[in-house]
Formats: sequence, structure tokens, C-alpha cells
Amino acid sequence: MTMFFENGEEQLMTNFMTQSYEESTGEDNSLLLKYVRQLSNSSTIENFNEVTLDPVDWKSTREQAHRMLDTSLDFLENSRQRPAWLPLPTETRQRLTTETLPREGKCLKEVCDDITNDVLPYCGGNTHPRFWGWVHGSGTVGGLIAEMMTATMNSNVGLCSHSGVLIERQVIQWMVDLFQFPHETSGGVIVSGTSMAALMCLAVARCHTLSKIREKGLVSLGVQLVAYCSRETHVCIAKAMEMLGLGNEALRLVPVNSQFQIDIPSLKSMIERDRKDGLIPFCIVGNAGTVSTGAFDDLKSLSIIAKENHIWFHVDGAFGSFVVLDETRRNLIDGLSEADSLAFDFHKWLHVPYAAGCVLLRNFQKLQDTFSSTRHYLTGTKRGFAGDMPWFSDLSIELSRPCRALKVWFTIKEHGMNKLGQTIQNNCDQAQYLANLLMKYDFIQVFTPVSLNIVNFRVEPHELKHMDSITLDAFNDEIVNDLQEKGIAVPSTARIHAKNLATTQYDRLYYVANQRVLIT
Amino acid sequence: MTMFFENGEEQLMTNFMTQSYEESTGEDNSLLLKYVRQLSNSSTIENFNEVTLDPVDWKSTREQAHRMLDTSLDFLENSRQRPAWLPLPTETRQRLTTETLPREGKCLKEVCDDITNDVLPYCGGNTHPRFWGWVHGSGTVGGLIAEMMTATMNSNVGLCSHSGVLIERQVIQWMVDLFQFPHETSGGVIVSGTSMAALMCLAVARCHTLSKIREKGLVSLGVQLVAYCSRETHVCIAKAMEMLGLGNEALRLVPVNSQFQIDIPSLKSMIERDRKDGLIPFCIVGNAGTVSTGAFDDLKSLSIIAKENHIWFHVDGAFGSFVVLDETRRNLIDGLSEADSLAFDFHKWLHVPYAAGCVLLRNFQKLQDTFSSTRHYLTGTKRGFAGDMPWFSDLSIELSRPCRALKVWFTIKEHGMNKLGQTIQNNCDQAQYLANLLMKYDFIQVFTPVSLNIVNFRVEPHELKHMDSITLDAFNDEIVNDLQEKGIAVPSTARIHAKNLATTQYDRLYYVANQRVLIT
Repeated sequence: MTMFFENGEEQLMTNFMTQSYEESTGEDNSLLLKYVRQLSNSSTIENFNEVTLDPVDWKSTREQAHRMLDTSLDFLENSRQRPAWLPLPTETRQRLTTETLPREGKCLKEVCDDITNDVLPYCGGNTHPRFWGWVHGSGTVGGLIAEMMTATMNSNVGLCSHSGVLIERQVIQWMVDLFQFPHETSGGVIVSGTSMAALMCLAVARCHTLSKIREKGLVSLGVQLVAYCSRETHVCIAKAMEMLGLGNEALRLVPVNSQFQIDIPSLKSMIERDRKDGLIPFCIVGNAGTVSTGAFDDLKSLSIIAKENHIWFHVDGAFGSFVVLDETRRNLIDGLSEADSLAFDFHKWLHVPYAAGCVLLRNFQKLQDTFSSTRHYLTGTKRGFAGDMPWFSDLSIELSRPCRALKVWFTIKEHGMNKLGQTIQNNCDQAQYLANLLMKYDFIQVFTPVSLNIVNFRVEPHELKHMDSITLDAFNDEIVNDLQEKGIAVPSTARIHAKNLATTQYDRLYYVANQRVLIT
Repeated sequence: MTMFFENGEEQLMTNFMTQSYEESTGEDNSLLLKYVRQLSNSSTIENFNEVTLDPVDWKSTREQAHRMLDTSLDFLENSRQRPAWLPLPTETRQRLTTETLPREGKCLKEVCDDITNDVLPYCGGNTHPRFWGWVHGSGTVGGLIAEMMTATMNSNVGLCSHSGVLIERQVIQWMVDLFQFPHETSGGVIVSGTSMAALMCLAVARCHTLSKIREKGLVSLGVQLVAYCSRETHVCIAKAMEMLGLGNEALRLVPVNSQFQIDIPSLKSMIERDRKDGLIPFCIVGNAGTVSTGAFDDLKSLSIIAKENHIWFHVDGAFGSFVVLDETRRNLIDGLSEADSLAFDFHKWLHVPYAAGCVLLRNFQKLQDTFSSTRHYLTGTKRGFAGDMPWFSDLSIELSRPCRALKVWFTIKEHGMNKLGQTIQNNCDQAQYLANLLMKYDFIQVFTPVSLNIVNFRVEPHELKHMDSITLDAFNDEIVNDLQEKGIAVPSTARIHAKNLATTQYDRLYYVANQRVLIT
């Protein structure tokens, strides 16, 4: 920046501009202080009805806060003494859904009591050792402390220079190293979950593809982009295609083989056919642990096909990515480190409290290309609070964003990757153990092979052996509901095309995903 | 569901199906218990390397947790004793960004100390009374307690039947009533912020528009949808248009009048011209409090235009919506209750901890039309844990989602809308007060009118009165950086087309948004 001054102005300006923090506090000829001293000390606003959201009585507020912390720790320490799930009593449901908008407040103690009485006992249940449904994480005490600190600091990590921003960058760097993405060019952001991550990664893939088309001087209007994934892929990919305006019909669902992996020859011919039809393949999605059966696509082959065809390779590894920490299963993700993008969750197998997921990109610059938007009120500076570019708001959909990274950082620092990996390995061993137990009983059909921490099985009592499939489905549903309502455990259900069962049509099986549970 | 049984099977099945929770626990001929009793009690897995993420020593863990809570409360209670912002020392920055991925863990106390020493002192600063930059909320102690409980319960409110889901529905209902949306048909979801909410609302508007086109039997391929908003609109709308694949050129930026409101005649002629060109207007976006000057569009007129033209009317009210709680300013949002959708934040003017924003829709069904996706592993049931349809995962982009609603619920219950409204009114009065103070000094240019809690001003010392605009910009930037680095306060900057200043080009002014601050 060149500035032209007259006479003594230059000296004044130079003094001001070059004065460091320490210097200018003391100097009497500081331009800033000269004016600051002129500002009056005014103390009152007329007719000001002073209210505050701060505690009026800090002592009693502290007591309340500590009391609630004890309630929280008791709740977690005594998980096993509780039922796995408690349905909401009618009167509680009433209270929680028919309260009129509070015009006047209640004292802190009463609001805390409302949580303790009406909310806490009837929460999800995934903190319980026998919560085995869908794919959930349990959270940890360390994570609870981290979330407490996050709320205290209340940082907005979308912009500016502060510790939360650095923490997020650190966690991303750890993930780049863990998944062996290229150190120099890779990067990412922490988001609320794999659904958001998928949307962002597909947006980047699209932006990248359209840019290449434009660079070649080709017309990019009216191009029809298509993506490819296996039939077993999570719905978040199809939802992302809809959000992006590409439409879910532009998502080719490739058949799977007997291990529920994407069928490579089918994928190749689909790509070839689409190209012939003048469509533009823009993304291949590989799975690292499907939700129903824990299947892993052949990521190595997919990365080669993507490279040969100049197509973006995205890996959806919502929960299966973390086999990277299990030496006995790490090979399942061979090829993942070749991906252009990876989406996964911390709040599943790493048990970080909800919500925290991750976008990882091979080429960090692509994030900025896709999401940055300069506005005058969001201009960064070299020094001062508005420093530390690039801001995360230029790397994602969100502008204001919470510091999700702190609980991830805390969890990793407290337990270390080796121990977290051991819990994952144990979790998978537990699933094998459960499957072996179940296979002893002739009225239980276990779906094999058992992958990761998922056991699918089905109860077919002798009394009902002549029943049709629909009836047996209903019977199994009722068992699951009963187990839940009795508080014994919380499994969930899934449909799997079960070729090893008597019938070839879709049968409903239990879906039991063991979390960090010890069967003792 | 019709089932056909043989002989005694029907009775067995009936018994099983109709047994209530209480009944079947006791009955010996319960089909479930008959089989459950057969299952063995096995106790060990071979070669199991038992590790746990639970505390090994609960007593010392509790002490740590309570210690950190005290640290948090001290931090908040003593805000005023701290500088408004503390730049990260070099060695701290080093520590936070160059740690190798931890393979082994550290004890809880050490991780807590890392936060206390390296993270907490250098967090954003928006909890400080003199943090006046951009648009931030401060958080509250009640919000901190709520976040602690949220992390404890670790509920995933994307699916199933538990208290967190009901809490979210309650908060949404309160907002429907507060903003006077039709009680019977309206609804919404809580999201991470207005950027996400904007994306979702525009997605709904698109889905709605395309559906209408298809209903008429018209071809919806190749239609070019266009949206309209003022030039002062927040960047999140343009980002949403890009994400949706519509492109930001399809977002018409309508000129503004001297109060920075959308110019209605210009809007009307743009719509007419686009229609003539065969384009499909699908959304008009009205502003309730723009970020630079706090301007409010004439929402009533916009709602009429939207209705006459059968165009979706969306209101972006990220921070200004809550003037609804200020009787002296409520009129600014006349017409908002006619909107088809509204997006706003709780984490700004309601000081709920980051992050919590809201999508509100006049027609709740549209959320499901746009975002629901049935998958077999996400099937709800009438009873049991998988009850309480519709699930929030069918109403939003996210599947797994944290219970953001609890801290909103807590904040509203603790303080009540009257008091929250008073803080907003006070905050705006503080801005007027500041403006009046500043106007006493002839070296300070104050941009008028002052709207809401935003004061824009500019320092032009006599010594520099012959300087050009760029130099004065730089000087003002340096003042802001100095104020920040000295820890005195944290204002930010913005560019406003300032017609009341000597020059007509864009001049940089301070942007000072007073949060819940008392000037004493």
C-alpha cells in the first residue's frame, strides 16, 4: 500500500502504523490515545430498563451447575442399572409438548429440575451398554467435559483468529495423516455429519468437473452429470444429488456381488454406456462399511477406474473408515488413501458426542474454489482479530459454526488412537462372538458373513415354521419392539436380500450393531 | 395386517401380539420368554483385550469435571477483567498446530490442563462485554448447563422416540406461535444456522415450484428458475443458489432505496421481464435485518407481490427476526407472518450457545415432500423405540443430528420471552446511545440512520483531513486492529455506500454490533 503524505503527517502516520502493541500503550504522542483520551466517560442511558442474562446470584448458580454435573455423571456411571430404553409416559409427553410459549422465566433450579425429571430419563438410550440399534455412538465423559468447555467459550469458528480455529486445523491434519492423504495438499473441515459431508464432497466434485469442462472451452450449460454408487449405498448420496439439483435418477445404482460390494464390471459398462450417450460421469462413490452389512467396496479398483476415466472418487466411510485403527481389518480400506474426498463421522465409532463428522479432500484448494464468497463484511486482515485466513466460512456451507473440533481433539488426546483402535477391534470381536452364540440355536437364522460390528439374524420358532415370510417379519418386528419396551436391549431391523435362506425374496432380519459394549 | 394361522398357532400368536409390557413379564407361556430362557449365559470372549472408554477411576474423574466447571464459571463471571481479545502467543500457536497424531492417550487431568492453558484464554472473545464485531451471540450460563446435559444424553434426534425429539417439536411450536404462522399447518426444524436454513428453504421452494409445474402437466426439464433479493442480502442466499445447482446468476440482485430496502418497483419489473423471457420466478427473499445496516425490507408488500405472482416468499431473518420481542420495533417485521418460509438464528440475539438456527415453514408437509427418503433400515414403527414418526431425518438434510433444541428450550424457559425482548430493546437503545456519544466529536463521522444494534462510524482526524479515501480506510482499519490487539474492544468493519459523506464512492466504516453489553 503506497501512501503519500504531506510534511509532518508522514511522521505521525508512520508512528501510528509502526507502533507495536507494547510501544503505543506508553507513548504520549500516540494518535490513537490522543483521541481516545478525548472521549468522555459517560455512564447512564436515560430510561434504561436494565436486565441481564447473567446470573444474578453467582453462588447459587454455581451450586446448580455442579448439581447438574453430578446428575450427569451419575447418569453415565449407572448406565447398566437402567433399562436400555424407557418409553415416555403419557403425562411427561404432555408436559413436553403442550407448554405455551413462556413469557416469564423460571428460576434456574426449576428448569434444571425439568430436565432431570422429564428429559434425562427418556433420552435416546444410546449411552446404554445394550443399545445396539442403527449406528450410534455413546459419547464419553471426556467428551462431556469438552462440550462444556466449548459452550463456555462459545466460539464461532467460521471466522477470525482464535484457538478454536487452530484446534480444527489440527484435527484435520491428524486425519490427513491417519488416512494417508498427501500431507502438503490435503485438508478439510469438520461438519455435523456424513450427510453434510457427502453433500459438500459432491458439490466439490461437481465444481471441479464443470471447471475442467470450461477450461477446455466447452459449453457447460445443459450438461447432464451422472454419478455412480452401489445399490447398498447410504441414502445421503441420493439426497445430496437431489439437493445439488442433479436429481437422484442421475445417480446410477450399480448392482452388488454376493459380498454386497459394487460390481466392477457393471460399473465399467455403465460408465461406458453413459459416455456414449453424451452424459458426463462426475463422481464414483465407494463404500467403506455399508450400513446394512458393513460391506467394503474394492476401493483400490475403484480408485484406478476413477483415475483412468478422470472421474472424481469419493469414499463414503461414515462408520467403516475407522477400521484404519484396527490392524486386523485395515486392509478393508486399501485404496482409500487414493480418494479425492472422504466423508466420515467421529460421533459413531470414536464415540465423540453428537455431532461431528468430517470432509477430507486430497486437494484442499478445491474447498475454497467451491465455497468461498467474498463479502466486504467478511474481509480478513493480516493482523488483529480478523486474521488467520482462510476462514472456515470460505471452506463450507455454514458461516457461523460451532467448535465441533474440541470434543474430537479431546477424545483423541485422552484415549489415543491405539486404544480407540482396540475398542473398535473388540467391538468387531463381540459381533463374531454374538453370531457364534446365536448359531447354536436352530430357531435362529444368522446371516453370514458377519462383517465389522453388525450381526443380522432372524428368529423363526418351530411353532411358526409354516408361516409365510410376511408373518415371520411381523413376528420379528414384535420381538424387537418387545425387547425395547421391556428395556432389555435396543436392536433395530433391516432388509437384506438373503440368498442363503429358504426364500430368495427380501427377508427382514435383525440389525444389531454392537457399540462399545462388553458382553459380561 | 392379516395373518392366517393354523390351529393353536393363532392363539399363541395372539397371546404374543397382544401381550402388553406388564402382562408378558409374568406369563410363563410367553413365547418370547420361552426362547429367551433358553439362551445361555456366556461370559468370556477368548483373547479379549479389554479396554474401556469409561473412566477407570470415577472419583478422580468427577473431581476433574467439577474443576473444569469451576474454571468455566470463573471464566464467564470474570469476563470484564479480561481483555476483549488476546492474540495467540507464538508458542501456543505452535503447540496447537504441530502436535503429531496421538497414538497413546494422556490422563484426563492433562488434557483438561491443555484446554485451560492453551485454548480457553485465546478463544473468540464474544463472551466479553466489549465484543462488538460482526453478529455474534454471547452464550449464557444456562446455555452452558443445557449443553452439558445434551452431551450427557448424547441423543441422536434424527430418528426414533425419545425426549429430545419432543423438545425440538415444542420449540418449533413456540416459534410458530411467536411469529404467528398458521398453527395447524406450520412446522419446522432446528438446524445449525441460517446458512443451512436458507439452503433448506430454497430447496423446499424449488421442490414446491417444480411440483406445481409437473402437476400442470408441463415439462419441468430445462426450466430456468430465478430468485430475487436485494443487493444487501446476506451471501448465504447466493451460496444456496450455487449449492442447488441454480447458479448465483439466477439470483436477481434488486437495487435498494435510500433506507437499503429492496426497491419494490424494480422488483416488479424484473419479475415481469423474466417471465417474458420464459424464466420461472420461484422465490422472493425478503430481509429482516441486513447485516451491514440492519435494514428491513417492506415484508408486507413483498408478501402481496409473492401471492399475486404465485412465487414462494422466503424471509431471511438471521438476527433481525427477534425484533418480534421488542414492542417498539415489532412493526419492522409486519408481513413476516405471511411468509412461506423463515430462516433465523437462536445463537445471535437470543444468546443460545453455538450453534442453533431455525427453519420455519407455513406448510410443514413441504419439508417431508422435499427431504424424506424411505430406506428399509430407517423404517418407523407404531410402538417401540422406532416410533414417533415423522422422524427429523425425513425433514432435513441431516440424518444423525444432535439435540440443538435443548439449549434453546432452556434459554427460553429460564429467561422468558419478555426478558429476552427487553435485552434486545436495550441493545438497540445502547446503539442509539453510542451513536449520540460519537456524534459529539467532529473527527468522527457517524453513518445514519442507526438501525437496531448496529453503529457504523468512521474516524477522520484533522491531521489526515487531506488524505484520500483509501488512506483513510487504511487508517480506520489500523484503529480497529489496534483496539483488538490492545484488548480494549473488538469492533469489525463494513463497506457502505455512504451518500451522506463527502465522497460518493464506497467508504469503509466501522461496524459495531452491540451484543448484550451494558455501557457502564
